[in-house]
Amino acid sequence: MILGIVILAVPVFSHQSHREYSEFAQALLKQGLTEQSTYAILKKITQTGPRLPGSSQAAAAVKLTQQLMLEFGLDAVHLEPTRVPHWIRGETAMAQLHSSEYGSQPLSIAAIGGSIATPEDGILSTVVEVKSFTELRKLGEKARGKIVFFNQPMDPTFLNTFSAYGQAASQRTQGAIEASRLGAVGTVVRSLTTTLDDFPHTGMLLYSPDSPPIPAACISTQGAETLSRILSLDPKTRLFLHFNCQNLEEVDSFNVVGQITGLEKPQEVVLLGGHLDCWDLSHGAHDDGAGCAQSLAALLLLKQSGIKPKRTIRAVMFMNEEFGGTGGIDYASSQRRRNEIHIAALESDRGGFRPLGLGIGGSKDRFSHFLKWEPLFHAVGLMWLRQGGGGVDIGPLGKSGTVLCGLIPDSQRYFHVHHSAKDTLSTVNPRELELGTIAMALWAYLIAQEGI
Amino acid sequence: MILGIVILAVPVFSHQSHREYSEFAQALLKQGLTEQSTYAILKKITQTGPRLPGSSQAAAAVKLTQQLMLEFGLDAVHLEPTRVPHWIRGETAMAQLHSSEYGSQPLSIAAIGGSIATPEDGILSTVVEVKSFTELRKLGEKARGKIVFFNQPMDPTFLNTFSAYGQAASQRTQGAIEASRLGAVGTVVRSLTTTLDDFPHTGMLLYSPDSPPIPAACISTQGAETLSRILSLDPKTRLFLHFNCQNLEEVDSFNVVGQITGLEKPQEVVLLGGHLDCWDLSHGAHDDGAGCAQSLAALLLLKQSGIKPKRTIRAVMFMNEEFGGTGGIDYASSQRRRNEIHIAALESDRGGFRPLGLGIGGSKDRFSHFLKWEPLFHAVGLMWLRQGGGGVDIGPLGKSGTVLCGLIPDSQRYFHVHHSAKDTLSTVNPRELELGTIAMALWAYLIAQEGI
Repeated sequence: MILGIVILAVPVFSHQSHREYSEFAQALLKQGLTEQSTYAILKKITQTGPRLPGSSQAAAAVKLTQQLMLEFGLDAVHLEPTRVPHWIRGETAMAQLHSSEYGSQPLSIAAIGGSIATPEDGILSTVVEVKSFTELRKLGEKARGKIVFFNQPMDPTFLNTFSAYGQAASQRTQGAIEASRLGAVGTVVRSLTTTLDDFPHTGMLLYSPDSPPIPAACISTQGAETLSRILSLDPKTRLFLHFNCQNLEEVDSFNVVGQITGLEKPQEVVLLGGHLDCWDLSHGAHDDGAGCAQSLAALLLLKQSGIKPKRTIRAVMFMNEEFGGTGGIDYASSQRRRNEIHIAALESDRGGFRPLGLGIGGSKDRFSHFLKWEPLFHAVGLMWLRQGGGGVDIGPLGKSGTVLCGLIPDSQRYFHVHHSAKDTLSTVNPRELELGTIAMALWAYLIAQEGI
Repeated sequence: MILGIVILAVPVFSHQSHREYSEFAQALLKQGLTEQSTYAILKKITQTGPRLPGSSQAAAAVKLTQQLMLEFGLDAVHLEPTRVPHWIRGETAMAQLHSSEYGSQPLSIAAIGGSIATPEDGILSTVVEVKSFTELRKLGEKARGKIVFFNQPMDPTFLNTFSAYGQAASQRTQGAIEASRLGAVGTVVRSLTTTLDDFPHTGMLLYSPDSPPIPAACISTQGAETLSRILSLDPKTRLFLHFNCQNLEEVDSFNVVGQITGLEKPQEVVLLGGHLDCWDLSHGAHDDGAGCAQSLAALLLLKQSGIKPKRTIRAVMFMNEEFGGTGGIDYASSQRRRNEIHIAALESDRGGFRPLGLGIGGSKDRFSHFLKWEPLFHAVGLMWLRQGGGGVDIGPLGKSGTVLCGLIPDSQRYFHVHHSAKDTLSTVNPRELELGTIAMALWAYLIAQEGI
């Protein structure tokens, strides 16, 4: 994979001309699309399997990406510790509806991440269906002893599917708390996906100290439609739930860090990152193997180009974005940061789809200043730069003034696969993925040379 | 599928305000993404099967889309005749390499559309590999009696994959002519795809009256790599080719036409179109079931909105884009056009992927004028309007001054599936497809009301 091709010999100790950057952007595009290394790296990452925080697969991915960084000849390759929750799904996840009028029928479910198990014999109860917490609260005592079925679909009319996700996600994250407060014995939550299929889409939930934890599962959208229809025909329909997940003790895990050390201002860092962990129903190709592979491949691409940046360009594979974001928190607060200044950080955690633009954080003035580079990003396929950016993993760096940025791919396909068994390598297009890498490499190099 | 929802009551006999158009665009977006009718229509079209011009499947697709137009309540639904070639692939397509040193091995091929069959016993010959016509011509007499293997890959470094296709396509379209001129007995052509796989990607070829036709097949990219490697190790490697396709007599077929007749200027037509025929290795989901489904769905969406356009908005399902473009030619020259003025025509024939922008033909002044609508297109998800547009089917209208336009989706994935068995419904995302429909409906309505 190492090519040893020097794309462009760039002068190091003086500001470069727009033309030089333009030629450099073209060279990155050419090299990236020819090699398409990102896909090969992503393949290796996904082959480690479902990388739930605390799992042996996550540990294997730590080892793999550290090894890749060494192979790519990155500097200062090391691990940084972080504590992560250790939840395991168990072997069983069963749901069955029972209607005296319409018969029995299995439904496709999966425990929500962090859920407690059902009792050993499962739960069998009648069901109340709601589409909002307001609706649920109105039920009051009628929810007691019942299974609460949250059935709010993602709104398909948003152009940006992340907005629709944001609007509907609280039923999964907060639903068990709200249901438990009313004395419910369990919850099932309609999967957060833009498609109608039979795959449960999982994610994390929260419990509250003020109400007992109750078992919570996500149900496929087709399952939700079925359950809703049968409930409307026969409100006495009962639902049987059985799953045996467990919350174990927290364990040690790691962020993986490597860099191209800056020649002039090595303590000033430009960071590219994604998260190495993923949900356990798939191999996390888009979420967020893609972001990790792109961050690694961007540094490989820069390394191959022969550039010696003024400031340090660093890749970080964050651990545990999905289960509390401890990796990002521990990275920002680590003693190792004491003598470093992170001037900008960019996270790729929206899937390996066709990148449309970059979100650039910081003040309006800073953004206006950065806009002078827009034609360079157009040349590598981006359509726009917009103000505002960030991500769960790099968020904690914001407190120290780091400019937080984000790669924004098109979002139409993301929630078809998100947090489900469908998030596999076969849904990733190597060219789309690579265009993200190229844009990230260009962004990092410009800031490493010019500041922000 | 008919909803009967009046999105917006719009005044008909006066110019509308930007705000009204803006609300209309929002309503189209909401309605389109909620219903996602385009995917349902595309499913029906693909279910007719491989719609090679002259085939029973193409005839079934004519009938189906005519029926859909009637169901949608379109006006003046009718068929317009066109003559089309009738080529059939036959049952056999075999290729096998034979090296005395490296053994025998089958290769994945398919006859190129329009090719003659091999002799009944097939062809067995040594092979000359070239990457350009210049290279071939240099071989001169060395090509006589040989199979010419054209192995120029698509250049992966183009952002726009259509440019890479354009650069490499002549080896498929003209290769048999060039090889025959040197006395070659057959040709195999590396498939025009951006990926390495074992699927042949077909297309059309041309023969010339000045040299005898020779059998021509496309070979999968993996097959091409294998053949090239073995040839480099053992130049005496022979290739066996056998396929039994046939060129039959031309037959009658049809373009399918339906419209929403304009209230004020019914003779002025704004046209949306795609082509109904496709290559026979798949069901032609992206090429060009998508464009047909979008054109139909755009008219359905407009119809459902309750608008009464000033000018006529027409959908045309062109026949035989793939095998000579007779549908587009006959449409433009039909006597029916005598009392019509086609003021603008937009073709969708670049796959049902995420639309990025619109290409707008005509003069620079006209384009500058049209740019005032850009914010409306941004609101439905497009990134840009650019000058220049058109397509094979609407091209012949250009002579009479029709402004030719095109929907431009992102091209990264197109040549993975193009003209191969992979061009199936499962590779189409309903949201991406629908965004194209919405943009097309908006484009058509604006021009129907405002002219261009």
